[in-house]
Amino acid sequence: MLIVKKFGGSSVADKERIYNVAKRCIEDYKKGHDVIIVLSAMGKTTDGLIAQAKEINPCASKRELDMLLTTGEQISVALMSMAMDALGVPAISLNAFQVAMRTTRKYGNSRLKKIDTDRIKHELDARKIVIVTGFQGINRYDDYTTLGRGGSDTTAVALAAALHADACEIYTDVEGVYTADPRIVPNAKKINEITYDEMLELATLGAKVLHNRSVEMAKKYGVPLVVRSSLNRASGTVVKEEVRMERMLISGVAADKNATRVSVIGLKDEPGIAFKLFNLLAKNNINVDIILQSVGRDGTKDISFTVAQDDAKETIDLIEDNKNRITAQRVECETDVAKVSVVGAGMTSNPGVAAKMFESLYNVGVNIKMISTSEIKVTVLIDQKNVDKAMQAVHDAFGLGE
Amino acid sequence: MLIVKKFGGSSVADKERIYNVAKRCIEDYKKGHDVIIVLSAMGKTTDGLIAQAKEINPCASKRELDMLLTTGEQISVALMSMAMDALGVPAISLNAFQVAMRTTRKYGNSRLKKIDTDRIKHELDARKIVIVTGFQGINRYDDYTTLGRGGSDTTAVALAAALHADACEIYTDVEGVYTADPRIVPNAKKINEITYDEMLELATLGAKVLHNRSVEMAKKYGVPLVVRSSLNRASGTVVKEEVRMERMLISGVAADKNATRVSVIGLKDEPGIAFKLFNLLAKNNINVDIILQSVGRDGTKDISFTVAQDDAKETIDLIEDNKNRITAQRVECETDVAKVSVVGAGMTSNPGVAAKMFESLYNVGVNIKMISTSEIKVTVLIDQKNVDKAMQAVHDAFGLGE
Repeated sequence: MLIVKKFGGSSVADKERIYNVAKRCIEDYKKGHDVIIVLSAMGKTTDGLIAQAKEINPCASKRELDMLLTTGEQISVALMSMAMDALGVPAISLNAFQVAMRTTRKYGNSRLKKIDTDRIKHELDARKIVIVTGFQGINRYDDYTTLGRGGSDTTAVALAAALHADACEIYTDVEGVYTADPRIVPNAKKINEITYDEMLELATLGAKVLHNRSVEMAKKYGVPLVVRSSLNRASGTVVKEEVRMERMLISGVAADKNATRVSVIGLKDEPGIAFKLFNLLAKNNINVDIILQSVGRDGTKDISFTVAQDDAKETIDLIEDNKNRITAQRVECETDVAKVSVVGAGMTSNPGVAAKMFESLYNVGVNIKMISTSEIKVTVLIDQKNVDKAMQAVHDAFGLGE
Repeated sequence: MLIVKKFGGSSVADKERIYNVAKRCIEDYKKGHDVIIVLSAMGKTTDGLIAQAKEINPCASKRELDMLLTTGEQISVALMSMAMDALGVPAISLNAFQVAMRTTRKYGNSRLKKIDTDRIKHELDARKIVIVTGFQGINRYDDYTTLGRGGSDTTAVALAAALHADACEIYTDVEGVYTADPRIVPNAKKINEITYDEMLELATLGAKVLHNRSVEMAKKYGVPLVVRSSLNRASGTVVKEEVRMERMLISGVAADKNATRVSVIGLKDEPGIAFKLFNLLAKNNINVDIILQSVGRDGTKDISFTVAQDDAKETIDLIEDNKNRITAQRVECETDVAKVSVVGAGMTSNPGVAAKMFESLYNVGVNIKMISTSEIKVTVLIDQKNVDKAMQAVHDAFGLGE
């Protein structure tokens, strides 16, 4: 069996943890399995490197930032290989150049395109544990690129896909995917099985256990994912295409505080205005989430939408600069908002889900500012201060803690 | 003009120094020159990484150590490029993969074989300052290798040779090459010009301003070297094939405290014994320096030689293990010894140099334990405690401080 195992930065933060990971991986190796390990940079290494860069140049180019940051994972994999060696197991560390981890051109947030698996296969055939740098790739210019925060998950899934691995295990500091964040909803329960689509909604919506691009890729190539704890032996959460029938209607509740509501007021009520507005944002790589358009009145209408907080300033500036072209009278923004979502593949055939969610929020006095629905989720925008209360209420209403 | 400039770890140890180096290099760039910068790891980074490795595995493999250590220079070059950018000058950092810095297979102390200059030329043509990681290379397996301590000098010379640079400037924290170490001999003087051969002897003998392999390579390819200060504008020392005629007989005095004398006692006085002994050491990559063989007596002889302190234990163990084969009765070693040498291309035609050196040592009561001479140097082995006194005496005897 070929198993890809991914460990995050906190799992390799010091000598003791590195040895814990090494020992755990060696167990599978000694059972006769082929083992590939994908590692992130140790502990706060990446943050430290970013701070160093900012000291030198607050506007450092992304190309040079990637050149700097990729050293973090290289340190992790070299040290892990040394630990394996000390434990008497042959291992070898490989970086993005050595596995030809090809990505798109873009620095800072690149996408994997292709992996040359020859070297890895060769080392596995020699019965070595192969330890690969997560998060990093190289582009067509042979420059380092990085896959964005959490990109090591994507590296692991990509390797699993390219090598047709039998399992891809993502180790975290929690026991798996929960029906809600246990720090906010104390009676949240671990989910044993979840579909790729549901996981994708939860990942995108801030559940933070898996990088959403990794889930997209796992779905595309049918890579069986397991999210489990690096601290204990609990079975974790299996992410796959189909799950058992007896499962619940709703798989989980997620919150995302990284949201800003932007309202564009007084747009002309005529065709093409919405297109011009959102085309402007798309061209500038700004992802827009919930969109709400008011009914036209007196020849004008308002459009509200949410963007990530990091993009808020650029969004406002862009709209201000193009006010005339998109016929806006003014633009407003609200930052103290958050999204709360229920996710579940079962809801497509059950129109009562949205109603039950709204009722539970009404019962605890939470006002809903915007609503968005898809086939497997219902999202509401509420005041940030109400997030915890709202999550608990929705979680209880669907009986997720039982 | 194409200029290669190499800066050591202390020259890039912090933000202020990085900017000092950047500004200095930009001066040449703004004169219209093409500029390549070779950097070592910042300050004590390499020592820190080695300590991290030792914590994980005191016997870490050299392959993984190189994988770890090469991150050091990558951090330096990325930060330097960011500093250039902040100063408004286009720059790009490149590592050993990106310039295909091919070396021999050996890890930890590899030798450069070939550099692919296409990428560098391309970036220079785009009028960028090119910043290359020193000290590191990649071998035929596409694994990182390192060139041994001080290897960044070699990287700089190799780049200068491959690109037919007009100058290769090695920046240090001293003003150039001195007639002796100024910390030991206060009236030591800076040498303005020195031949490759003399520099090679001084480098090998512990003058520490240049890595000896870099001087060998500079000689082989005729790369004009300049050793100068990163702290001021002094003209430094030029290293080249021929120097002016009016120069002095002796160019300098060097000391090397990293020496151990090994004595193999009671060897059979018959042919082949010396061969067996030194072949044994050569096979195990132990470099032997001064060799002294006693006159045979009672059918036995003694052979003494010096090795680097790091190799002493292995040398003793090897001889003990092969005692019978090489017919040794016992082996002794002495660690409190040091080599002091005078170097000068002028001495070949002047037999009085050795005599004058020995006289000056006699005058200050320093006993000579072993002697070795070449065409351009005379080396003596003395007690380590006498090194300072001996250097001053020899320096004065040849009038180097005048």
